[in-house]
Amino acid sequence: MAERRYAILGTGAIGGFYGACLQRAGFDVRFLLRSDYETVRREGLTIESVGGDFRLPRVNAYRDVAEMPKCDGVVVALKTTQNHLLPKLLPSVLADDGVVLVLQNGLGIEDEVADIVGGDRVVGGMCFICSNKVGPGRVRHLDYGPIALADYTPGYEPLGITPRLEAIERDFQTAGIEIQLHEDLLLARWKKLVWNIPFNGLSVVLDAKTDRLIFDGDSRQAVESLMAEVVRGAAACDREIPEAFVSNMLVTTEKMKPYLTSMKLDYDGGRPLEVEAIVGNPLRMAAEAGASLPKIELLYHQLKICDRYNPHREGLGDSC
Amino acid sequence: MAERRYAILGTGAIGGFYGACLQRAGFDVRFLLRSDYETVRREGLTIESVGGDFRLPRVNAYRDVAEMPKCDGVVVALKTTQNHLLPKLLPSVLADDGVVLVLQNGLGIEDEVADIVGGDRVVGGMCFICSNKVGPGRVRHLDYGPIALADYTPGYEPLGITPRLEAIERDFQTAGIEIQLHEDLLLARWKKLVWNIPFNGLSVVLDAKTDRLIFDGDSRQAVESLMAEVVRGAAACDREIPEAFVSNMLVTTEKMKPYLTSMKLDYDGGRPLEVEAIVGNPLRMAAEAGASLPKIELLYHQLKICDRYNPHREGLGDSC
Repeated sequence: MAERRYAILGTGAIGGFYGACLQRAGFDVRFLLRSDYETVRREGLTIESVGGDFRLPRVNAYRDVAEMPKCDGVVVALKTTQNHLLPKLLPSVLADDGVVLVLQNGLGIEDEVADIVGGDRVVGGMCFICSNKVGPGRVRHLDYGPIALADYTPGYEPLGITPRLEAIERDFQTAGIEIQLHEDLLLARWKKLVWNIPFNGLSVVLDAKTDRLIFDGDSRQAVESLMAEVVRGAAACDREIPEAFVSNMLVTTEKMKPYLTSMKLDYDGGRPLEVEAIVGNPLRMAAEAGASLPKIELLYHQLKICDRYNPHREGLGDSC
Repeated sequence: MAERRYAILGTGAIGGFYGACLQRAGFDVRFLLRSDYETVRREGLTIESVGGDFRLPRVNAYRDVAEMPKCDGVVVALKTTQNHLLPKLLPSVLADDGVVLVLQNGLGIEDEVADIVGGDRVVGGMCFICSNKVGPGRVRHLDYGPIALADYTPGYEPLGITPRLEAIERDFQTAGIEIQLHEDLLLARWKKLVWNIPFNGLSVVLDAKTDRLIFDGDSRQAVESLMAEVVRGAAACDREIPEAFVSNMLVTTEKMKPYLTSMKLDYDGGRPLEVEAIVGNPLRMAAEAGASLPKIELLYHQLKICDRYNPHREGLGDSC
């Protein structure tokens, strides 16, 4: 099991950080890159972390998945806006008994991955981390770091704690990464949306950091009413999010350092926004379950417009 | 009746244009100004209009209401964000048998005016005009121009077509201004909100002109769903807005030249936004009548934030 080889698809703020942690702990890690390929091949990866800076002068960097060996764990850490690439990437790099670990934001991505590799080979993960890519091959890890892991099956039936979850947990813990195992992936994903929908969404529409969004009275009302709609969406999917979870998330956000959300960073960087994964898919899943979420629906259309007419966009993005 | 003297409170895009039309037709018009007082006293008013340019080299300009004579018709054409001034302005300038004509956007303003001058001395008017103040004493009239007039009584009971409405109609028609008389002020005000809430609101939040808002697919959905909520709000207040009215308004907007809404102009100019009159009051009136309008509620909070942290604001506004 310690022989497990990992592929990191998308070597940015998430994939770069966790992949570097795994390699530092002795795992065989293969990094797929695009715009940063030359730099990383030459200079490796540099991690500036609250937990201690470190550098990997040599990493196995690839720009074409065809050159990569088969891997037992394939970490999907692209932006979801790049997921149209997955049908080409995954079959090429995933070992026959390998598993895909989806470390992306939003809802419904595991379904897409399952369509490509099969429904029994997907695990979902949610990263609770503040990290940014600050240059080619350079990641700054600002705060937090745990990954919530849960196993996937088509239809999102809760699978409980499976042996393969525990195997991934062992590897990541060996690499110093805190892991929380969850029995119900869909519940865990909806819970993460309680934060992601209001804060990612409003940060872009209102050009604001987390501190203004949580402390301004009007924004607070908007945030709380959007959170209430996420809870209703989850309930429509038979997932109960306790009141206390929501209030705790508000308190946690009050204590956060002022922070630009990932969607706001993408917006300011002129990159495509993860609107469909984070807002569109939950909206559609709730609608299919009979719940209408009018505020999230308005926010969705607003974000589509922000994305389409993003004044920061010119030339190519550099999402990973 | 032709002797009626008019006061214009707020000599900007609305008050400057209609007041100038009245004076040109021979009425005795008194203009209250603030920042433009010196220029207008010296140079009068200049109207660049699609209906023909004209200039009034001399007008009766005031900067203090105490110096104005009592007037039979007092036209309130301030921004609603200046309405805290009305308790000082109106009693000083309104003749004993005079009437106040509220030419402002939004809902509930007549109630505020009635509290000051009495419930039997207020008439409401809605201007369907594209005009901008382009300099001190200079108004550019781009398109349209009719005023919808309806009489007011506390509780907004429909009063039908009253003699004083017809008297104002005669004066304004003499001045070349098209007048539409309405029997039900509250219905007329809700109808105007069908346009004002989505277009004023979204133009600020999304930094967009009318053409993008009406032609972009996502914006169009946002616009239409906000309009549907306005219709529900009106219905809660026992006012029925027909389906055909809404679809006709969409078609009209498609044909408009790309246009910056008044709220967007205020935003870009760093002036306070008319959020309470145009969005907050309708929301509260609907809530009191038992209707929740979630999308308008989110838009309201967003606009409050846009207003509070307007990056264009520095120093003093120049709203009239």
